[in-house]
Parts: sequence; C-alpha cells; structure tokens
Amino acid sequence: MLKELDLRANMPKDEYAPLAEALKPRLAWLQQEAIRENIPVIILFEGLSAAGKGAVTNSLILNFDARGFTVYNTRPPEPSELRLPWLARFVEKIPSRGRMAIFDRAWYSALSMGLDSEKELKKRLREVNIFERQLADDGYLVLKYFLYIDKKEQKKRLEALAREKSTAWRVTENDFKNLKRHGEITDFYDSLICATDTPHAPWRTVAATDKRYVRAAVFSSIVENLEKALAKKRKEISDGAFTPRIDPRFRLLPHKTIGELDLKKSVGEEEYRERLKEYQDKLFKLQNKLYLKKIPVVVAYEGNDAAGKGGNIKRVAEALDARGYAVTPIAAPLPDELHRQYLWRFWRALPRTGHFAIFDRTWYGRVLVERVEGLTPAARVSQAYNEINEFESMLARWGAVIFKFWLAIDKDEQLRRFEDRQNTPEKRWKITEEDWRNRDKWEAYTQAADDMFRYTNTDFAPWVAVESNCKRYARLKTLETMIETLQNRL
Amino acid sequence: MLKELDLRANMPKDEYAPLAEALKPRLAWLQQEAIRENIPVIILFEGLSAAGKGAVTNSLILNFDARGFTVYNTRPPEPSELRLPWLARFVEKIPSRGRMAIFDRAWYSALSMGLDSEKELKKRLREVNIFERQLADDGYLVLKYFLYIDKKEQKKRLEALAREKSTAWRVTENDFKNLKRHGEITDFYDSLICATDTPHAPWRTVAATDKRYVRAAVFSSIVENLEKALAKKRKEISDGAFTPRIDPRFRLLPHKTIGELDLKKSVGEEEYRERLKEYQDKLFKLQNKLYLKKIPVVVAYEGNDAAGKGGNIKRVAEALDARGYAVTPIAAPLPDELHRQYLWRFWRALPRTGHFAIFDRTWYGRVLVERVEGLTPAARVSQAYNEINEFESMLARWGAVIFKFWLAIDKDEQLRRFEDRQNTPEKRWKITEEDWRNRDKWEAYTQAADDMFRYTNTDFAPWVAVESNCKRYARLKTLETMIETLQNRL
Repeated sequence: MLKELDLRANMPKDEYAPLAEALKPRLAWLQQEAIRENIPVIILFEGLSAAGKGAVTNSLILNFDARGFTVYNTRPPEPSELRLPWLARFVEKIPSRGRMAIFDRAWYSALSMGLDSEKELKKRLREVNIFERQLADDGYLVLKYFLYIDKKEQKKRLEALAREKSTAWRVTENDFKNLKRHGEITDFYDSLICATDTPHAPWRTVAATDKRYVRAAVFSSIVENLEKALAKKRKEISDGAFTPRIDPRFRLLPHKTIGELDLKKSVGEEEYRERLKEYQDKLFKLQNKLYLKKIPVVVAYEGNDAAGKGGNIKRVAEALDARGYAVTPIAAPLPDELHRQYLWRFWRALPRTGHFAIFDRTWYGRVLVERVEGLTPAARVSQAYNEINEFESMLARWGAVIFKFWLAIDKDEQLRRFEDRQNTPEKRWKITEEDWRNRDKWEAYTQAADDMFRYTNTDFAPWVAVESNCKRYARLKTLETMIETLQNRL
Repeated sequence: MLKELDLRANMPKDEYAPLAEALKPRLAWLQQEAIRENIPVIILFEGLSAAGKGAVTNSLILNFDARGFTVYNTRPPEPSELRLPWLARFVEKIPSRGRMAIFDRAWYSALSMGLDSEKELKKRLREVNIFERQLADDGYLVLKYFLYIDKKEQKKRLEALAREKSTAWRVTENDFKNLKRHGEITDFYDSLICATDTPHAPWRTVAATDKRYVRAAVFSSIVENLEKALAKKRKEISDGAFTPRIDPRFRLLPHKTIGELDLKKSVGEEEYRERLKEYQDKLFKLQNKLYLKKIPVVVAYEGNDAAGKGGNIKRVAEALDARGYAVTPIAAPLPDELHRQYLWRFWRALPRTGHFAIFDRTWYGRVLVERVEGLTPAARVSQAYNEINEFESMLARWGAVIFKFWLAIDKDEQLRRFEDRQNTPEKRWKITEEDWRNRDKWEAYTQAADDMFRYTNTDFAPWVAVESNCKRYARLKTLETMIETLQNRL
C-alpha cells in the first residue's frame, strides 16, 4: 500500500556514492548479458506527477548502451490509436528479444482514459494482467516501479517547477487540480497496484522523497531482477509435454471434427452466379453501415493447402470498398516478428473501428504448422490456445465481430488441385515443394485442426467449418455467414 | 491540362470486356514479375471528389496477390505527424523492393494543408519532385493518375451518394462547397500537375466520366509501365564511375581536409570538469526553451572508429531530459531497410518538433563505409551526396537545427585505443575483427571523409570537425558548438 511506505526513506551522499559506483557498471554489464541471452526487458515507471519518473529514467539509461533500448513517454492517444483496442498502442512497443523498452508512464496511466464505469475498469485490469502474463510466459522480464510522494512534497515540487521559467511548461493546471485530490488519487493507484501485482509482473513501490534513495532502490532492484532472469534463462528450456489448459472463464462450444464434415456439399454454376451477386451487394451495404457504427470486423481464414482461401477472400474483397478493408497474408514470421511475442504481428494488423481486416492464414499458425513441424516447443504450443482465446476475447470486448473460417477439402481433392497447379503455367507459383511435404503430414495437420476446434471454439469467436470441395459452395457459405452475423450485430 | 481532356471519352461494354479479359491476367502476371525482379512500385490516384479513385483502386487490386501490395488512404495528418516534416508520413509508406504501395490520394492532397503562402507551396512542390526523383533514381516505379470530371458530372455523383443512405457519410459539406469552386480547383490542380509532371514520375490525367474507360486507361497504362520497367531492369546495371554532381542551388562551403586538422588540441582534467558541468547546465536549459518553441534538433555523429562517439554522445545525453531526446545507433541496414531507398530509415528516426534526435553514425554511411567497402555501386554513391543535401535541406526548411560532427583521431591514437579495448575485459565487446579490417583501409576512409566534406558542407548543415585525440577537448567542443548555435537560433 502506497500509504504505508516510509516516505522519510533517504540515502546520504556518502552512502550512495560507493553503491552507485558498484551498481552502474553492473547495469551496463547485465544489459550486455541480456542481449547475449536474448532476454527482452520491459521497465516501466508510474507514479504521481513530479515524483521523479523522468529523473530516474534519465539516470538509468545513462548506464545502458543506446543500441539496446528505447524510451517511450506515454502521451494521450492519437486519433488513430483511439480506433484500436486500448492496449494496442502498448503492445506495438514491446521490445524484441535482447532489447529493452523503458516506459515513462505506461498502460497504467492509460487505463482509465475514456472509461465510464467501474466494471469497465475491472475488465481493463484483467486485460493488463493477461498482457503481462503472456509476455512473462514468453520470456519477457517485466519490471514495474511506482514512485510515490506525499502531498506536501508534491506541492513543493510542482511549485518549484512552475516558478522556474524553463520548466514551467511541464506543470499543467491539471497537476494542481490533482494535487488537491492527492488522497483520492493515492487510493485509486493503490487499487490498481493491488489488482495488478502478480507473480509474473510484480510491482515495486518506491518512496520517492529522496532522489538518491530512488535511484539506489530502482537500480538495485533492476540489477537483482536481471541477474535472476539470466540465471533462470541459463538453467531452463527443458521442454514440457503437450498439455493445453484453458482458463475456465472461457466457454468452449462443441465443434464438429474434420472427419464429421460433409465435404460434398455443392452449388451449381448458375445458382452460384446469382447468389454471389446478391450476397456481394448485401455485404457492400453492410460495410457502409458497419463503418457508420464504427464496428471493426476481423476475418480469419485457415484451412487445408489449396482449399481455396485466395479465391474465397477475393469474393469477399470484391464486395468491399478498398478504403475500408485490408487483406493481410500471413507467412513465416520475419526476424522482427520472430523475436517478439508471437501475437505481436497480429495486433499490428488489426482493423481500425469500422474497417475489415482479412487474414489469409492467422495466429492459428502457432497451433497448426508450428505445432506439426515442431517449430515451437510443445509446452509453448499448449499455452497458445488460451493465449489466443484471450487475444480474441480482447477483440470481442473491444467490439469486433470475429469470423474464423476453416476451409476444408479432402485429400483427393487436394491432389487434384495440386496437380492442376503443377500443370498450369500461370498457377505454378502457387505450388511449392513445401506443399507436397505438408501433404505427407495430412493426418498430423488434421489432428492439429481438431485440437484447435476443441480448445478455441469460444462463444465470442466460434469457428465456422466451410466445406470447400466445391469452391462455389464455400464462397457462398462464407459470404452468407458474414451477412447473417453482421446483420444480427447491427 | 485537365480542362483540355475530352470528358466524353467512354468505352462501350462490348469493347471493354475483351480488353479487360486481356489486361487482368497480364496485371497479375506482371505483379509476380515485379516481385521476382525486386521492383518497388508506387501507384497513386488523385482527383476530384467522386471522380472514382476508390472504384478504380477497388478494381485494380483484385488483380493482384494480396501478399504483394498495401493500399493507403490518405487522411488528415495525426497530431504526431504534424510534428514531423510534412512529407515524412508518406516517406514512411514507401514499399520495399518487389512490393506495391497504392495510394488513394497521396502527398498531392496534403500539399496545401496548413500553408500560408504561395512561396511555401512552391517549396513543397520542389520537395515533391526531389522525393519522387530520389525514388526513381533508386529504381522505384512511380505511377501517378489524376481522375477528372466536370462540374455537372461531379454534382450528379455527389447528389447520388448523398441520397443513398449507405453512402451519404462519404459526402461532406466541404465536397459541396468545393463543387461550387470547381473551376478554381481545376486551375489549382492544373498548376500542381504542371509543376510535378517530371520524366521520372509523369502524370497521366484521365477523363473519368465513364468508369469502364477509366479502368481501361489505368489498367493499360499500368501494364505498359510495368512492362517498360521490367525490360529496363533486365537490361541495366552496368555500373557507372564515381562522379558526384551537386545541384547548383546548394551553396557548398569550403572545409578543412582531415590532414589539415590539429588533432593535438587538449584540455586538462580540472578545466574539463568545470566546463562540462557549466555546458551541460546550459544545454539542459536550452532544451527546455527549444521544446517550448517546438524547434527540432538533429545531431549527427560520424568519425573514425574509436574516436569516442559513444562517450561524447553520453555527455550530451546526460545534459538532456530523457523525455525529449532519443539516441539512434546506426548499424548495417536490416533487411527491411536494405530493401527500401536508403534514407527511409533515417526519415523514420527524425525527432518530433521540440525534440533531439542523436544519431550514432548516420546516413553518411552511404558515402563512407558503403563506398569504401564497395557495398553500393559507385554511380549510386555519387548520387548520394546530392540526395543527402536534399534530405538535410528539407530538414532545415522544416526548422530543424542540424549538427554534423566528425570526430577525428590519428592513426596512432586509434591503435592505442584499440589495444586498450582488447586488453580490458569490460571494453572488449566494443572491438571486433571488422574494426581491425577497417583500420587497414585508413587512407580510403580518409579520402571518403574528405570527399564527404567537399560535397555536403552546406550553409544550412555545415560539418564541424571535432579534434578528438583528447576526449575531454572533443566533448567540450561539441557541447560548446551546440550551445552557441542553439542560442543563436533562439
């Protein structure tokens, strides 16, 4: 509790000097070690105005090689950021492995922006815990410091800043308004800290009356935590087994297995043409309405190779205005993406409110190709189901309509299509050695898909299996599904 | 001239259908070829409201594989974008080699935003030409289409959009206001088109009354231009000689050669400590004033290996508030960066107004390491001097104060420092095989530095040679230079 901090805590110069002498080179060395060991580090400072967040950031970064960190100052969101889930602008800034992100104010300062209810705040706090836990599970070190001063000290500092011509701009009317509410604000932060003080991302509250004391406390804590993280990292990575665990708060719905699908469903050419036109017109009108109501739509396509994702997406895209949608094809992660928590690249491709984001393959790669090909250890794959449910639940809570289409064909149909691609010059680029290799693992991929349905078929983001042996049928089904769901939403 | 377009131009359905049949697969194929040949393509659509930019974008992209392009809709700038040079938000979006960026409105629509004079507009037009020429020189294909309709047609379309419930949101009051000024706006665009119709990025104006005609005209033109670009790319790359050419509009100042520097200048420990403190205090105060006046500062560090850039930067950084500066260390370009025009990554690291951006090595790598090591063909290096002057002139015109420090040590001093690094465990990470290899090319690097001074020592961004055999002297000199120049500016 902030109120229970001993705010008289201080450190005389002659005590601080030798300690700093010891800590500073240690920090520099530990940064180099973290780089070598590929540990991503997030250090964030929250606290009352004038508590000294800037000063401690300043003195901290002087110990680090500039090539290894970035400092972020959290400011009010940009208009474009307001059209994304509230956490997106912070997720975007997570460091890649071996790098540090240092936040002078972070998501905690943004938590209550534009909030209208206590209930909403609680949901955001839960999202913060999810976000930080997902980072920790991926090997991120998250260090959180809260700098606290009492009302008298805060008043003294704000007045000193306001008096000095060169620093007066830093103090706003709001700061003085908040000064009057010092007690109330303390309670508010106490409740935030209490709700987000977790084993994977614990808070360290710091009595910030004396600047040397703050530096000593923060530097020592960072040294200690980096050392711990390095020791852990060096022991680790004995891989666990495949044991998915889903947060019981998620309601999982039953889903047909791949084997239960009737892939023979089909539609004739004439009926197809008529209904396609009708559906596309409807979808176009719905897009306009969704735009006006600022509802974002996320469309995720997965399925067997050659199941017709591209053509299916094209029929959806044809219906839409280019200003309101983007297709994001997902291939193997780039170095930039590989070196961050795997959901990072999908957060960055979210639609703005009122827009469509269509994913040609998705975050489910984690539990499909990465699982089957052993690209990710089984223990991490196991965590992914829940991480994905959490991710999608944040999108749903934000207001997004989520479609998850699984385009299914059978093994014979795939062979026909592969051979067709191989034999048609202008289609040949679509088929690679890898497709043939994947085909050899048909059963493993089917198993992975069935597990995916089992663990991620939530009520807020259900799967839709699209029987795709007949492409016409498949295209109409996705369009029809979208139209129906979107109409319901509106 | 827009007014001279034949706006009755149209294409009957039976003429369009076979043409489209031929063009569409051609577009798809050419995109694949452009990917294979690593040609970056920018296609932009400008035009009057309701002229059909969205419709043509929609129909165009359906021909392309979504993995190869991005569509951008230009909207009013975000607050953060207003704190950067006006072109920065467009530079940021240039595609990497092999990819396409398609703009529904682009920099032309942003040209006159927030402008207060005809003179300023002319300068921006010159910057547009520089921007597009630099892209073309780097192998970018830039295709610009202007869609034009007459007043009557525009009125009809705006009214139709406004009538329909699902599209009414697209029409603003401003559109109807502009409709009344149709003639005036036509003249304005005519003058823009005239000023920016260049050999490297020519305009194609399109009579946009008939939609089939627009599609036919645009698709054919894109096919034709892609084919030309592919043919050219396939011939080329016989490298030229080293022949820098500087736009005569730049005033180049004489500069001492490396050989003329007196590297022995030094300062004693005591004097150093006193003056360092004094200078850092001054710089801190200046930072606050610059922040208030929203003046951006760009600090570029180059110099011999082991000349003390890191320590020098640290003394500057120590003086500054972390909220107002960032140090950007420049290493070999990442794939992302390598596959775009080389200045792209520096545009992305510019300071916001009122902030400092400190570069530990810079865009001059192009004419230093890339030249000496032959990483870039001599002909492209030759162009870089002028490109850099252009880049810096845009920063200067934006209002930035630019510092370019060359930290110079002699060969003996370098050897001493290399050996010291080698022999001190905690410094060893600073020295690599590459440093020793570079040292063997001392004369070539000196020549490159001298050429750099010769061609890029402009009045708006002059070089400052910092004699650095004595680190203390060097640190005081950079601080002193900054203080003096910044005080003058204020």
